[in-house]
Amino acid sequence: MTIITFLSDFGTDDVFVGLCHAAVARIAPDARVLDLTHAVPRQDVRTGAVRLADCVAHADADVHLAVVDPGVGTSRAPVVLETPGPPLVGPDNGLLMPAAARLGGVRRAWEITAYPLGRGSSTFHGRDVFAPAAAALAGGVAPERLGRAVDCDRLVDLRLPPARVHRGEVRTTVRDVDVYGNVQLGAEAGALDDAGIAGGTVVVTGPRRVTARRVATFDDLADEVGLLSDSFGWLALVLRRGDAAVATGLGRGDTVTLTAATR
Amino acid sequence: MTIITFLSDFGTDDVFVGLCHAAVARIAPDARVLDLTHAVPRQDVRTGAVRLADCVAHADADVHLAVVDPGVGTSRAPVVLETPGPPLVGPDNGLLMPAAARLGGVRRAWEITAYPLGRGSSTFHGRDVFAPAAAALAGGVAPERLGRAVDCDRLVDLRLPPARVHRGEVRTTVRDVDVYGNVQLGAEAGALDDAGIAGGTVVVTGPRRVTARRVATFDDLADEVGLLSDSFGWLALVLRRGDAAVATGLGRGDTVTLTAATR
Amino acid sequence: MTIITFLSDFGTDDVFVGLCHAAVARIAPDARVLDLTHAVPRQDVRTGAVRLADCVAHADADVHLAVVDPGVGTSRAPVVLETPGPPLVGPDNGLLMPAAARLGGVRRAWEITAYPLGRGSSTFHGRDVFAPAAAALAGGVAPERLGRAVDCDRLVDLRLPPARVHRGEVRTTVRDVDVYGNVQLGAEAGALDDAGIAGGTVVVTGPRRVTARRVATFDDLADEVGLLSDSFGWLALVLRRGDAAVATGLGRGDTVTLTAATR
Repeated sequence: MTIITFLSDFGTDDVFVGLCHAAVARIAPDARVLDLTHAVPRQDVRTGAVRLADCVAHADADVHLAVVDPGVGTSRAPVVLETPGPPLVGPDNGLLMPAAARLGGVRRAWEITAYPLGRGSSTFHGRDVFAPAAAALAGGVAPERLGRAVDCDRLVDLRLPPARVHRGEVRTTVRDVDVYGNVQLGAEAGALDDAGIAGGTVVVTGPRRVTARRVATFDDLADEVGLLSDSFGWLALVLRRGDAAVATGLGRGDTVTLTAATR
Repeated sequence: MTIITFLSDFGTDDVFVGLCHAAVARIAPDARVLDLTHAVPRQDVRTGAVRLADCVAHADADVHLAVVDPGVGTSRAPVVLETPGPPLVGPDNGLLMPAAARLGGVRRAWEITAYPLGRGSSTFHGRDVFAPAAAALAGGVAPERLGRAVDCDRLVDLRLPPARVHRGEVRTTVRDVDVYGNVQLGAEAGALDDAGIAGGTVVVTGPRRVTARRVATFDDLADEVGLLSDSFGWLALVLRRGDAAVATGLGRGDTVTLTAATR
Repeated sequence: MTIITFLSDFGTDDVFVGLCHAAVARIAPDARVLDLTHAVPRQDVRTGAVRLADCVAHADADVHLAVVDPGVGTSRAPVVLETPGPPLVGPDNGLLMPAAARLGGVRRAWEITAYPLGRGSSTFHGRDVFAPAAAALAGGVAPERLGRAVDCDRLVDLRLPPARVHRGEVRTTVRDVDVYGNVQLGAEAGALDDAGIAGGTVVVTGPRRVTARRVATFDDLADEVGLLSDSFGWLALVLRRGDAAVATGLGRGDTVTLTAATR
């Protein structure tokens, strides 16, 4: 049993996801497609990249397939990235790069030029290029047979900026906001230690200035904003009941500064 | 091929469901996860319990996994419930109890303390505790190996109150409202017979007083509220075209009284 | 491994889709259900028929199962349609007919009268009639054993009207609008050639009069309405960024006329 994880911004209102599954079934009948999510905000490559990077550590797979592709049908290349872990398949627009880094970096890359399902359309590469290529890989086809090698240094990169840690201050950005309104930051708990920010309360300065209490779990909170390590290891602003994104005014990509609360 | 049914309030906008599937695939590669729904209203344990109880009679499974868990990371225990049917896995907050009753009652119960995927997070027990435990059970691990036995009488209970049947009156609550606006009541058709409510028309008294015509199927209705046995055997208020919840003003948990229409 | 594709208007907010999967698993444990979409607009048989017809050419399957069924529980028959390709299972309300035509036409038809899961409900034929019948077929049961033969000429038909091509004019209807707002028309690119409409710009007359530029892919467009061949071969009105349905005022079923732009 081989597993292909699949993440996209296709949504589930149309037949797009279903037809990608069908394309995989046609080429690799024994492969199982494991849907991570298809609700990446439309054409938001950065959020797709964030989510994929967080998932690859938790999802054993033979291939990771991801499609968030505002440039479908244009000159951006469809690619296969070889890593020390499973290969990644998707558009060369940065989407795959943070996940590749998490898996140990890109060893070799190929531009997909041989589409196992024929010439295909110019508007639905998920069905006609990416899913077939992922299925071919899952079925044992070597990436060399899917296209031509490309220079890894020429891949479009997308870096999620690391937190900047100074004495008494951690500066980072909002990685993601989930449907509960939890605000995932681009810093791990260790960053606070490194900055010498101790104590149970942290001042969070973004669009607004908010005080957040450091806790281990939701249940430690009363009706107040909390700061905890989320299930991927990132610091996150949360409310026990309620939407921390609304409470803090923070959204994806916003810059935020964490400092110690003065006593 | 083993089957794990899966019900939650995670929604499908985030990667939560996908990562639970991935956790199962890691531990029990041959198990199939059959999603019942992930759109239980957020943190609504009672509605999750209603839906799970209705499903278990219609879904053959080796394990039923359910997660609606406002108390994640707190002292509420993650549990396995053994029944005469398949075991149930989820939080000890009542969610599993009506389904367990439907399956013949809880024979033995275990608090899950051995997490097959390691220590895990304090905020995402679906991925780190419940799905792995369900996968372990599906893969043949004995529940004894997942934790310690707990007293069945100490499990948090959640009873869906039976209809109260008097002469000429049935008093019950709204179990659920589906996306069509069909209003499922906590009484079966037999309750009307037991109350001696014959005739083709019933008065439904809730927030409003509505007359409903007893029918066998949607097609028997003109532009009027109908009362029929739904596909789970419950009485339901319906409209042929339109939303009976809106028409009757009824919502989940509301109390409603059925009486005969005076002529 | 057998594959049953599944399309419906059930949505994913309730347990309906999950219980259909469970019904299949009970009868044909080795069959895989491949969800095309469950977000067909509620009770919109025509849109369900359009989507199913477009999918069958791209999804290899042993059985196609489709349920958009405003008349559940009424006299409309549940049917199996035999085609030169896979059989189709669903209500006899026209839903299956365009897909059957795409697969080579209906050879024989049966009304489903033997429900493999027993008598079933009068309100949820997806779970109790259609999914079991599809599973039985996938498991090798002959359609003769599911019911009685019916006259193919008496099936409820639903024809998607072909484009009407005149000198200098193509008249057609909107087949579908996807979640991006792409407006799929009921004409292929060849219709423009047949009408002698050359040139890079076409006038689209519907509720509004819009000029659309003929392009091969989204990337050829600036901030203007484009007309391209979509991934199913249909002409479609699109915007590179933005919603062409909003820009053109067009919705499903609307009539639209394409003419050459005067210079």
